[in-house]
Amino acid sequence: MNVSQVNPGQPVAVVGAGLVGAGWAIAFARAGLNVRIYDANPHTASAALPWAANQLAALHRHGLIDEAPEAVAARLTLADSLAQAIDGAAYVQESVLERVDVKRQLMLDLDALAGADVVIGSSSSGIKASDFANDLTISPRVLIAHPVNPPYLVPVVELVPSTQTSPETIAFTDRLMRGIGQSVVHVRKEIEGFVLNRLQAALLREAWALQRDGIASCEDIDKTVRDGLGWRWSFMGPFETIDLNAPGGVADYANRLGPLYHSIARSRTEDGPWDDALIARVERDRRAHLPADALAARRDWRDERLMAFAAARAKDGDKR
Amino acid sequence: MNVSQVNPGQPVAVVGAGLVGAGWAIAFARAGLNVRIYDANPHTASAALPWAANQLAALHRHGLIDEAPEAVAARLTLADSLAQAIDGAAYVQESVLERVDVKRQLMLDLDALAGADVVIGSSSSGIKASDFANDLTISPRVLIAHPVNPPYLVPVVELVPSTQTSPETIAFTDRLMRGIGQSVVHVRKEIEGFVLNRLQAALLREAWALQRDGIASCEDIDKTVRDGLGWRWSFMGPFETIDLNAPGGVADYANRLGPLYHSIARSRTEDGPWDDALIARVERDRRAHLPADALAARRDWRDERLMAFAAARAKDGDKR
Repeated sequence: MNVSQVNPGQPVAVVGAGLVGAGWAIAFARAGLNVRIYDANPHTASAALPWAANQLAALHRHGLIDEAPEAVAARLTLADSLAQAIDGAAYVQESVLERVDVKRQLMLDLDALAGADVVIGSSSSGIKASDFANDLTISPRVLIAHPVNPPYLVPVVELVPSTQTSPETIAFTDRLMRGIGQSVVHVRKEIEGFVLNRLQAALLREAWALQRDGIASCEDIDKTVRDGLGWRWSFMGPFETIDLNAPGGVADYANRLGPLYHSIARSRTEDGPWDDALIARVERDRRAHLPADALAARRDWRDERLMAFAAARAKDGDKR
Repeated sequence: MNVSQVNPGQPVAVVGAGLVGAGWAIAFARAGLNVRIYDANPHTASAALPWAANQLAALHRHGLIDEAPEAVAARLTLADSLAQAIDGAAYVQESVLERVDVKRQLMLDLDALAGADVVIGSSSSGIKASDFANDLTISPRVLIAHPVNPPYLVPVVELVPSTQTSPETIAFTDRLMRGIGQSVVHVRKEIEGFVLNRLQAALLREAWALQRDGIASCEDIDKTVRDGLGWRWSFMGPFETIDLNAPGGVADYANRLGPLYHSIARSRTEDGPWDDALIARVERDRRAHLPADALAARRDWRDERLMAFAAARAKDGDKR
């Protein structure tokens, strides 16, 4: 790991210790960094440690950490206050509630407490940094660092500057994130949903519409992805996929299939199919397939699959 | 394998022996069926056999077939004519050129030659069966059976009836495809692009637009999928993904995130961004990332990754 832009022994802080924040704590600690964890709710903060210990044990079972889980867990400490958490920290990862007023209040608090150097990344999955982090002393040092959950398994992180973020802040966070093993995506302009959730939204919009129009069942739409489309997308993005799918590369593909895709796009210009009747129907379909009392067990299955996937990736050296 | 609806020894026919047709031949032969291969171009047909032998050897190396590759290859035979190919066949998989006039002519020929029982599946990836297969004696026995390439690795197949396809034809093809190990998706109404290419089109539309608007580079958009979104989609579809992503399941998720997705959908109602300048820019980006003379080697890499992915799936019993 190259986390050399953080001084030896200098901690990072995790503020907000729900699933996302606690997941970040593991990602940082696994890479050798000392992590201070703070949550306004002390119960949430203290629950994060046994949860992390469990996850670290699972990572060890899957061969995803070499160190003893206890050695990694020993780098996690709880802080009693925001001030204590960020005192001397090189970086703060903010993962509080996804609400603009809550994030703004935290930025005001950090503005009053933070040193002149600390960089602050926000886990916001959709709210732009400019909506809560501007016009403060810290503003040049705040940006979005949006993970996929859990960040210690799925490597992608979107870095999205506000209109006031400095280039140095982007460069620092890029190095830090690559240093702990994340895959960094630079979103160059603020846009609702950033890149990841916009791509997911586009696919979901079509999926909901196909269900609404009686074209295919939820389960058959799911099969189309998990037994078809998703295979290539698990190791190649959409541009590389089509680049390799025509003899002459992506331009050749676009010229051959552009008219079909254009026609499909023309057929889907209404602005969104998520009405209550449709939601109720999809909910019924899903519950027929997976009863509500089986959701928790299925989430455990998903997490095991993600760990197995990460282990397989790590094993083949993540050949890309 | 349960291919019991095909009589013992009764062959299936593959008409059109390009990459898709030859891939189908492997999928059928691997399951124990005798396959007759015909292509109007004799060079294409005879090239299919050594190509299939190579692929079967690779499948064997990856532990994806138990039989000796030669034993599977021995079930593939070339036919000198369309009549010879389909004589006594239980099923014909059509994989000729994706052009409505070419497919219509083949249907006219099959109508003149085919017995009263044979079922005909078309590999068409976008053209509806009603556009080329209607108003013939065989019409009730024709449907779309659209694979992902290669069908012997990626299991999904979309069955799409024409307006004249009989329910028995759908049921027969469903059993046959499940019998040879495919994952069957039923598309209940004819729609351009069916389900798979519509979902791909939706994601690509957003990807092209993000590139066009300078939000992110091709490579960063690709990373977002291969290091993020694509992980879950390789073993769960989009509905299951969101069903597990909110405490109360899919309706809970839709109520929480519906407004965000709706807003994203409202921002993307123009009908398609694939203009020549954009295509040229994406082509430049991709060629900077992967030179044209490296495309072939990268396709080999992709095929190896797909085989490794299939082997990993088979190993864990394809737990779903």
